[in-house]
Amino acid sequence: MKTAIYPGSFDPVTSGHIDIIERAVKLFDRVYVAAIGNPEKEPFFSLSERVEMLQLSLAKYKKVKVESFDGLLIDYARKKKAATIIRGLRAISDFDYEFQMALANRKLDSKIETIFLMTRGRYAYLSSSMVRQIASFGGDISGMVPKVIERRLSRE
Amino acid sequence: MKTAIYPGSFDPVTSGHIDIIERAVKLFDRVYVAAIGNPEKEPFFSLSERVEMLQLSLAKYKKVKVESFDGLLIDYARKKKAATIIRGLRAISDFDYEFQMALANRKLDSKIETIFLMTRGRYAYLSSSMVRQIASFGGDISGMVPKVIERRLSRE
Amino acid sequence: MKTAIYPGSFDPVTSGHIDIIERAVKLFDRVYVAAIGNPEKEPFFSLSERVEMLQLSLAKYKKVKVESFDGLLIDYARKKKAATIIRGLRAISDFDYEFQMALANRKLDSKIETIFLMTRGRYAYLSSSMVRQIASFGGDISGMVPKVIERRLSRE
Amino acid sequence: MKTAIYPGSFDPVTSGHIDIIERAVKLFDRVYVAAIGNPEKEPFFSLSERVEMLQLSLAKYKKVKVESFDGLLIDYARKKKAATIIRGLRAISDFDYEFQMALANRKLDSKIETIFLMTRGRYAYLSSSMVRQIASFGGDISGMVPKVIERRLSRE
Amino acid sequence: MKTAIYPGSFDPVTSGHIDIIERAVKLFDRVYVAAIGNPEKEPFFSLSERVEMLQLSLAKYKKVKVESFDGLLIDYARKKKAATIIRGLRAISDFDYEFQMALANRKLDSKIETIFLMTRGRYAYLSSSMVRQIASFGGDISGMVPKVIERRLSRE
Amino acid sequence: MKTAIYPGSFDPVTSGHIDIIERAVKLFDRVYVAAIGNPEKEPFFSLSERVEMLQLSLAKYKKVKVESFDGLLIDYARKKKAATIIRGLRAISDFDYEFQMALANRKLDSKIETIFLMTRGRYAYLSSSMVRQIASFGGDISGMVPKVIERRLSRE
Repeated sequence: MKTAIYPGSFDPVTSGHIDIIERAVKLFDRVYVAAIGNPEKEPFFSLSERVEMLQLSLAKYKKVKVESFDGLLIDYARKKKAATIIRGLRAISDFDYEFQMALANRKLDSKIETIFLMTRGRYAYLSSSMVRQIASFGGDISGMVPKVIERRLSRE
Repeated sequence: MKTAIYPGSFDPVTSGHIDIIERAVKLFDRVYVAAIGNPEKEPFFSLSERVEMLQLSLAKYKKVKVESFDGLLIDYARKKKAATIIRGLRAISDFDYEFQMALANRKLDSKIETIFLMTRGRYAYLSSSMVRQIASFGGDISGMVPKVIERRLSRE
Repeated sequence: MKTAIYPGSFDPVTSGHIDIIERAVKLFDRVYVAAIGNPEKEPFFSLSERVEMLQLSLAKYKKVKVESFDGLLIDYARKKKAATIIRGLRAISDFDYEFQMALANRKLDSKIETIFLMTRGRYAYLSSSMVRQIASFGGDISGMVPKVIERRLSRE
Repeated sequence: MKTAIYPGSFDPVTSGHIDIIERAVKLFDRVYVAAIGNPEKEPFFSLSERVEMLQLSLAKYKKVKVESFDGLLIDYARKKKAATIIRGLRAISDFDYEFQMALANRKLDSKIETIFLMTRGRYAYLSSSMVRQIASFGGDISGMVPKVIERRLSRE
Repeated sequence: MKTAIYPGSFDPVTSGHIDIIERAVKLFDRVYVAAIGNPEKEPFFSLSERVEMLQLSLAKYKKVKVESFDGLLIDYARKKKAATIIRGLRAISDFDYEFQMALANRKLDSKIETIFLMTRGRYAYLSSSMVRQIASFGGDISGMVPKVIERRLSRE
Repeated sequence: MKTAIYPGSFDPVTSGHIDIIERAVKLFDRVYVAAIGNPEKEPFFSLSERVEMLQLSLAKYKKVKVESFDGLLIDYARKKKAATIIRGLRAISDFDYEFQMALANRKLDSKIETIFLMTRGRYAYLSSSMVRQIASFGGDISGMVPKVIERRLSRE
């Protein structure tokens, strides 16, 4: 069984993340969508909120399992017997950062491969921080996040 | 009447900003130079200081009006009946970030267009944070900010 | 009257070019869409073919005038009394080349300004050479060029 | 059976290409390494030479099949019932071009996905044209191409 | 005597920094490796710790002198009678930031030149923050920092 | 004696090249400015014309020697006992290509180091091909090339 991990802060999950996950499930038998417990920047949503929003958004994908992890991504990947890490690339993208992370992870464990998938052009501008910023000013985030998240964020 | 908005933190206004504004006034009948009240990063100068420095620097431009705004840029642009947002690009530039903002704003209101103007090569290195850093160590900031701002910053 | 020039090879005109022109007509009173007579790379379509395809595609835009020019863009702009040159930027873009051209043109005539407009995310991948390549293999170019051009290219 | 295509000019195949193929065979059941019959730039080696060099280099990989194709990559992928196109990314890389191609291919057939794999840091500088240039001056290309290709190129 | 300065946060010094220093000592008679006393981001290690780790790592380089400085780099360079500032570039690199700093320093003193040296491909992924992150989770940092630093960091 | 090589097509030499050479002579005892006899792209000016223009432009620099070379740059550098290759970087720059060349040269001879110097902001837009293009249309190239070259090119 081919297993992959899609790690991220998901603070919150966006339509761009879902787009990547939909592509990943065609390539793998099992995809762990794994919220980072301790991201470098203090997250806006708590870990349990971020995991819950992922679960609400991904309920219908049978191959997907939402989890969270602490510590090194590589250690988590080994525990899950996952040989692949998935990362999304946007045309507008901190590609350099992604490459640096992928090379560092390869240095830590050369048997685990990072693959990059491309988000849809229409999500090029989309990031979690953009969503948070627009939502905080009462802007319209429809289409930027899954419907269930949109309702939840506008309630706040 | 063609109206444009030039938004920014202006923390403080630099000669690069003035350069962009001088180009903008040739293209538009009215240019709102709008200090962001609540930028993502905590500003060094207060909103009233940033607005005052803009006013001192831009007094002679008849088409320019200095203001500030809170909330979504798009909402402010609508209120001002401005169909255009102006952004400066430097050869050395976080172009990706600018593009992401512009696409997000277009998603929020497709009738408001972002246009990019190019700063002079000589200002390529110039940013507000660079000015603050040099000024804080007593370095020479002449030519980096308008004369009135230079006097003000060196007094501090 | 505010006049602008949108120069290019247009070999052939694409939906991305039309997208930029639609944005330009909102900003200017008159837009010259000007096919370069002698582009650096030998064009695939002759100058008269490229101009004809532009005319077919742009007939309905009252503010647009299709022309061609030889020699320096700056000389052509002066002749047309145009103070602005328009260039499109794609998220996937040879931004560096555009910037170099714009700075060179500014050096030649500092009174003529280059402004950059952003194409729609959906056209990010689109270029004239991509269209030629796909069409040459009988691929589907619908949506990549105006309808009138699509019919013409598939006839060949 | 998960099938992928790794297309390229392979003019000639380099150690960087082999590195990508070694990563691809861990992810897929069958990998078609497909030499482009008609690349945009006139190739230095003939199609049969390029295919032969690939075959010599890849004989030991049971999952790999060397082929060539003309026309659209997407048509070839459909014929092979391959749902994935593989592309290598180098830290030093024409990433923009790769992204443009991938988005164009997705537009032509949204069911065929492009994934990006990262070459080893040590091959960052390596390209077919670099190899040809160094070999043409009698420079040392050991480590830049598979051993069998090295012998062949130095014989010429 | 040709004197150069290699400034940085060195928070902590990495194998990539050492690689640059080894290249610098071939070009200059004296190289000051200068820890920035007051970097923009709050450092993880104290200034005395950062200087001590540099001293441990660089003891064997006779031309190298480890120091620290406060205030403007240009003022420090003048005091040391150094006409050259050395910066390392990685294939994966915030090149734009480096260029901005170098142009700003040239504006402050045109007689002091910045030169860029290239780190080894194998260190492309390496940064001080990456080392801190991996070390904090108990990951393996061998090869990422000098041996003496590795022992020190794993003791903590 | 510290010896460096500054290789290029110099087709023709520009003010940007001279700017780099002026910086190089402060760092080295001897600088060979070496015109590539056989550049990848067919040059516009013959090798003897390119060398002659360099000699006219550089007569006053005592440390500079104009030469030409065929074959591998690394072989030429060894013959000249030069341990350093100099390359100029522009803010607007094909940095990736420069890095690729530098890494390839390091692979061929690890004892020869490439260093990068930064051109003046005012030359950011400047390239030999830009000069040729403007000159061919009778445009004003003053300031873009040394005075002696300007006279020569406008005579043609």
